[in-house]
Amino acid sequence: MNFELTEEQSMIRKLMRDFAEGEVAPGADERDRTKTFPKEVFDKMADLNLMGLPFPEKYGGGGADTISFAIVVEELSRVCGSVGITYSAHVSLGCAPFYLFGTEEQKEKYLVPLCQGETLGAFGLTEPNAGSDAGGTRTNAIREGDGWLLNGSKCFITNAGYADYLALTAVTGKKVDGFPEITAFIVPTDAQGFQIVDNYVKMGLHSSNTTELILENVRIPSDHVLGKIGEGFKQFLITLDGGRIGIGAMAVGIAQGAYEAALQYAKERVQFGQAISKFQVIQHKLADMAMNIELARNMVFKAAWLKDQGRKFTKEASMAKLYASEMAMKVCDQAVQIHGGYGYIHDYKVERFFRDAKLTEIGEGTSEIQRMVIAREIGCS
Amino acid sequence: MNFELTEEQSMIRKLMRDFAEGEVAPGADERDRTKTFPKEVFDKMADLNLMGLPFPEKYGGGGADTISFAIVVEELSRVCGSVGITYSAHVSLGCAPFYLFGTEEQKEKYLVPLCQGETLGAFGLTEPNAGSDAGGTRTNAIREGDGWLLNGSKCFITNAGYADYLALTAVTGKKVDGFPEITAFIVPTDAQGFQIVDNYVKMGLHSSNTTELILENVRIPSDHVLGKIGEGFKQFLITLDGGRIGIGAMAVGIAQGAYEAALQYAKERVQFGQAISKFQVIQHKLADMAMNIELARNMVFKAAWLKDQGRKFTKEASMAKLYASEMAMKVCDQAVQIHGGYGYIHDYKVERFFRDAKLTEIGEGTSEIQRMVIAREIGCS
Amino acid sequence: MNFELTEEQSMIRKLMRDFAEGEVAPGADERDRTKTFPKEVFDKMADLNLMGLPFPEKYGGGGADTISFAIVVEELSRVCGSVGITYSAHVSLGCAPFYLFGTEEQKEKYLVPLCQGETLGAFGLTEPNAGSDAGGTRTNAIREGDGWLLNGSKCFITNAGYADYLALTAVTGKKVDGFPEITAFIVPTDAQGFQIVDNYVKMGLHSSNTTELILENVRIPSDHVLGKIGEGFKQFLITLDGGRIGIGAMAVGIAQGAYEAALQYAKERVQFGQAISKFQVIQHKLADMAMNIELARNMVFKAAWLKDQGRKFTKEASMAKLYASEMAMKVCDQAVQIHGGYGYIHDYKVERFFRDAKLTEIGEGTSEIQRMVIAREIGCS
Amino acid sequence: MNFELTEEQSMIRKLMRDFAEGEVAPGADERDRTKTFPKEVFDKMADLNLMGLPFPEKYGGGGADTISFAIVVEELSRVCGSVGITYSAHVSLGCAPFYLFGTEEQKEKYLVPLCQGETLGAFGLTEPNAGSDAGGTRTNAIREGDGWLLNGSKCFITNAGYADYLALTAVTGKKVDGFPEITAFIVPTDAQGFQIVDNYVKMGLHSSNTTELILENVRIPSDHVLGKIGEGFKQFLITLDGGRIGIGAMAVGIAQGAYEAALQYAKERVQFGQAISKFQVIQHKLADMAMNIELARNMVFKAAWLKDQGRKFTKEASMAKLYASEMAMKVCDQAVQIHGGYGYIHDYKVERFFRDAKLTEIGEGTSEIQRMVIAREIGCS
Repeated sequence: MNFELTEEQSMIRKLMRDFAEGEVAPGADERDRTKTFPKEVFDKMADLNLMGLPFPEKYGGGGADTISFAIVVEELSRVCGSVGITYSAHVSLGCAPFYLFGTEEQKEKYLVPLCQGETLGAFGLTEPNAGSDAGGTRTNAIREGDGWLLNGSKCFITNAGYADYLALTAVTGKKVDGFPEITAFIVPTDAQGFQIVDNYVKMGLHSSNTTELILENVRIPSDHVLGKIGEGFKQFLITLDGGRIGIGAMAVGIAQGAYEAALQYAKERVQFGQAISKFQVIQHKLADMAMNIELARNMVFKAAWLKDQGRKFTKEASMAKLYASEMAMKVCDQAVQIHGGYGYIHDYKVERFFRDAKLTEIGEGTSEIQRMVIAREIGCS
Repeated sequence: MNFELTEEQSMIRKLMRDFAEGEVAPGADERDRTKTFPKEVFDKMADLNLMGLPFPEKYGGGGADTISFAIVVEELSRVCGSVGITYSAHVSLGCAPFYLFGTEEQKEKYLVPLCQGETLGAFGLTEPNAGSDAGGTRTNAIREGDGWLLNGSKCFITNAGYADYLALTAVTGKKVDGFPEITAFIVPTDAQGFQIVDNYVKMGLHSSNTTELILENVRIPSDHVLGKIGEGFKQFLITLDGGRIGIGAMAVGIAQGAYEAALQYAKERVQFGQAISKFQVIQHKLADMAMNIELARNMVFKAAWLKDQGRKFTKEASMAKLYASEMAMKVCDQAVQIHGGYGYIHDYKVERFFRDAKLTEIGEGTSEIQRMVIAREIGCS
Repeated sequence: MNFELTEEQSMIRKLMRDFAEGEVAPGADERDRTKTFPKEVFDKMADLNLMGLPFPEKYGGGGADTISFAIVVEELSRVCGSVGITYSAHVSLGCAPFYLFGTEEQKEKYLVPLCQGETLGAFGLTEPNAGSDAGGTRTNAIREGDGWLLNGSKCFITNAGYADYLALTAVTGKKVDGFPEITAFIVPTDAQGFQIVDNYVKMGLHSSNTTELILENVRIPSDHVLGKIGEGFKQFLITLDGGRIGIGAMAVGIAQGAYEAALQYAKERVQFGQAISKFQVIQHKLADMAMNIELARNMVFKAAWLKDQGRKFTKEASMAKLYASEMAMKVCDQAVQIHGGYGYIHDYKVERFFRDAKLTEIGEGTSEIQRMVIAREIGCS
Repeated sequence: MNFELTEEQSMIRKLMRDFAEGEVAPGADERDRTKTFPKEVFDKMADLNLMGLPFPEKYGGGGADTISFAIVVEELSRVCGSVGITYSAHVSLGCAPFYLFGTEEQKEKYLVPLCQGETLGAFGLTEPNAGSDAGGTRTNAIREGDGWLLNGSKCFITNAGYADYLALTAVTGKKVDGFPEITAFIVPTDAQGFQIVDNYVKMGLHSSNTTELILENVRIPSDHVLGKIGEGFKQFLITLDGGRIGIGAMAVGIAQGAYEAALQYAKERVQFGQAISKFQVIQHKLADMAMNIELARNMVFKAAWLKDQGRKFTKEASMAKLYASEMAMKVCDQAVQIHGGYGYIHDYKVERFFRDAKLTEIGEGTSEIQRMVIAREIGCS
């Protein structure tokens, strides 16, 4: 066993700490208030060759491992959850499907520009009636001539407003068991009939991009099928396993940021004649926060390590995502509480972390779905 | 024992349910988004003689009891926490000090217009370095000729932007034990040197009014002392005891609104082929929510009843505030969770309830302060 | 509304406090260690006419209300959970079915001696495969001549070893929907073929009596049917509604006993130079304990009051039982924790309370069953 | 990073799993009931050269690392907490002080027989008024001729009844700051005036040995000082750091045993027509249990790994102990709950695990002390 980062991982940690402090943290509060997407941050990350970090160099990636990816997400989220989720979704939902299921031609055409940061990646799965329940998928694709005709809609799609193309799932038939046959397609966002509607007023993650997609008679050629026909749902499950490591890392980062802010505030804030960090109840809160972040980070790294080893990591990724997200919400809640009234206003970043953290319990499978996944993995059903 | 509302209390419940549904709920989401204070709501409440509900009719009040007051706050908060806190602060922080500590002349001059809704009430206690720790109070008043000269600042003051005058605390000397001697003063908001700064960007309660106050050489005559000189802190503690019943009721109302929204959503939302209200885990969540609201409401009513009986209710008011506020945060968190992705966007009011609820754990004494109060009351120190 | 005990209820509280302190507390630890049933306690309670407290005087009862019954259970449990559960089961499971469903003759014959304390009451419902799931009932009764022939077994039956007769459920046929038709029978414990096996080694409640029942060709005459044929399950549900108030009161009592012990210990135990009751973390623990007991007691009283009013109280009784039992476990856990190492040994009664409390989360419907009941009552299914 | 056990560690896991299942599990329930110490288990462990596992071979140890030690404790505790704590205390409290602070002669004389399992190790620190608060230590040692005269008492000493000698702390003077100067001494248990009183009736861990020590004019020669004079408290803190890894591993083991029992029971127990492992609420409970055990085990291994690396591990050991023990209590509580009534009786081992688990939150520093340690380590005070 070895709980130490490799030299390379440590270097990435250091690099990202500096980058996040220098390029992401300034303006994060302002961007939250004005709901501004920091496109420039990702351009700079592209310059640093970070946008395809865990993919092979031959596709323009950084050739790093999943632990390194988790570190990048964590460090970004430590100062800005919006940047964290944008990057995490780009890599694990936007790029990964092309890498995992694309043909060599598709990788060349789609994965390479994503890895080089020429466009952001997005993934269209969720629908008003279908998320973890794929059976509710309504978006459908029917063969038309040499290609396909797509109709339907998607919701809560991260990054779509900044993507040139994305993978999305559609029903292409019915299985023997009555369950819909689902296939993944590559859709250029400038396709005729494809519309992106950016009208969500979200609780938090204000400077990330989340949109609805509407497909009205969108025509795509046959080489835009991603992976095998009828395997879209299976592909989606594999993609989400990886995505959960990203959300777990994002939750760890948000929690770390909130914890550090609370610790610093507690050392400076004087009440009843002493710094509140001297009060036993505040000390115990901070101790719990530190401990729970430590536990979550270990779990995220373990899931990432298993993935890197090529082993099964479904259960561990769900555990990492579930624990880290619930932990982040609790840590941010306590960070606000330690700030008292100041925690409720925007000047102190814990207010932002609090709102951002809640998404980690919902996105890429709610906590309830994670528990279902884990229960299945331990043999309950 | 009797756990039933009186006929009058039931009538008030029904009246307020109708009023809240008809006059407060419409536009609540929009007001939250645009951060608009609904002055018209309070004008209508004034027409219904609600603004001085628990005060004697001879002062323009409604002559009702504290339980009725709690019911009004709960019903308002069930649809809009901002309206709930505005009303609660008006009554328990704005009016109550005049009723409890004012001379007959002061009651005529200040309490009557407040009860009649001609102006809103506010209370200036909190300072950047002083809240529950009165020892940190910096605002001071020194005698000057026949009157007083006030300097200092206050923060997080509810309603001040809509008040014609307010009571606030200032240091008027030093006690034998070195503790500052604190006195309450009545300050007209149009006094020379008095400035109201409305620049908070809050997490929630967007359509309530919270401001800073700045006092620079504010001169007030000697009859503007409220209560006895040097008893300002004691008066403040008594005032807050009552205020906690208001915040407790507000928390119950917010939780009730979030619970009802979640129950309705769960019955309508279909996943995996059935309404999610059929899933055992969702059922247990809703059962816990219903139970915890019931427990909190009983406690709020008990504290209110003790107050109405003229008995000591400090401990019970703290318990009501503490339990109800932590309960409300949990209930709203679960209500968001049950909504999944929809819980994170503004179209569903649980997103608003979630942000509003957090304030109840902070305002009028944080949860940590409530535990200190209870610990003292049970003889720990 | 009125949160005050009536004069009679207060008198019962006082009487029972004295009785519990004087007659039950001495020896409670010793009885726990030696697993001795304190028959003499119930004889003394019979002398005080307490064994049939909430039943009409014409049946030998005390003519008191359910709130009074809850007070008795609470005060007994505050010093000894075993005596509390014995009394609670006697009244709500042993006596109540005769009162609620018995003919006038059956009441004369069975209820009167129970109320007068000539024998203890018990109720045989649970089986190895049937508890809250009545569908799993295996004990069956078939008509034989003028009477019935019973075969089967029951488990976890409180008080059976000290009962002269008890009511128990058996399958008497099959309903149209395939669900078993269940009927309640009165079985004398000296009936031929009826065997009581006392071999449980329990975690706690060591001085209460819990046994298995074995029925091998037990013959009973036709007038031993209790209530209507086929209504045994419905009767059981009604009986348990009442029983839950008893368990709720028992949980409140145990928690109160543990809380008082912890508070006293904290005031006496010195660490780091001061009583540990001066440490903020201990203070907050004790404040939470006091608050949670208060909340639970209010809920138990509310459920009891609704029952006394003849109103529906199913939901409230489940809430009272659920909240009080989980609260009791938490309070006892913290009471042990406050005692440190001394909390782990038998000399300090919190060790006993801790083991006793766990049963309240299990008996008369586990917490999971209570949540099912509440979910149904709020309209989830 | 590497989350995999080494080959040697895996072998030890397998060996201990077999040993625990074959030699420890049989009779564990019976030993609990009869409060019998399984001396034979430790003799067999001595034959396998396990009693000094993490100490160098030259002292008769196994030359293994701390992770291996944690694995042994976990596997033993998975079937019997009493055997787990006995072994853990023997190694980390009994042997370690001799290894860490003893002279080469003392290691030869005392550590070697301990490592070879000729006697069990114990450590006398806690007193009625002194545990984590060393300032309350009353046991004192005064120089007398060439040696020392010891008087005082110790409580809650694990293994003392089976030890030939033990290290214990005594006051040898006063420091400049008024704090007592504490020194560790080696005391043979057959010394004149030394008495072991075995009269605790504990909640659980019934087949472990916990006693009081009474010292009345115990004379020991000068070479029985362990470590430096006046450094006893510092030595104790270092010893406890290591001990916490042991208790953390014990908690993980107990939780693992309880979880496995609950999972198996849930798959076999049928209610409402299906195995209760199919019910969503039970599934989520089991998923949480599995996740929390995983988190705790990672943390225990990380603390052990840091220790093996010769790095500072105080914070991580406290986190491991704190999280694992609170986790174990919750897991065992839920394991009992899943068993329903059967969880409350001795036939099902979760009843035993539940009582055993509670000690892990108390021994070697309560949860409150761990939070103090962590708070200090993160810079709160």
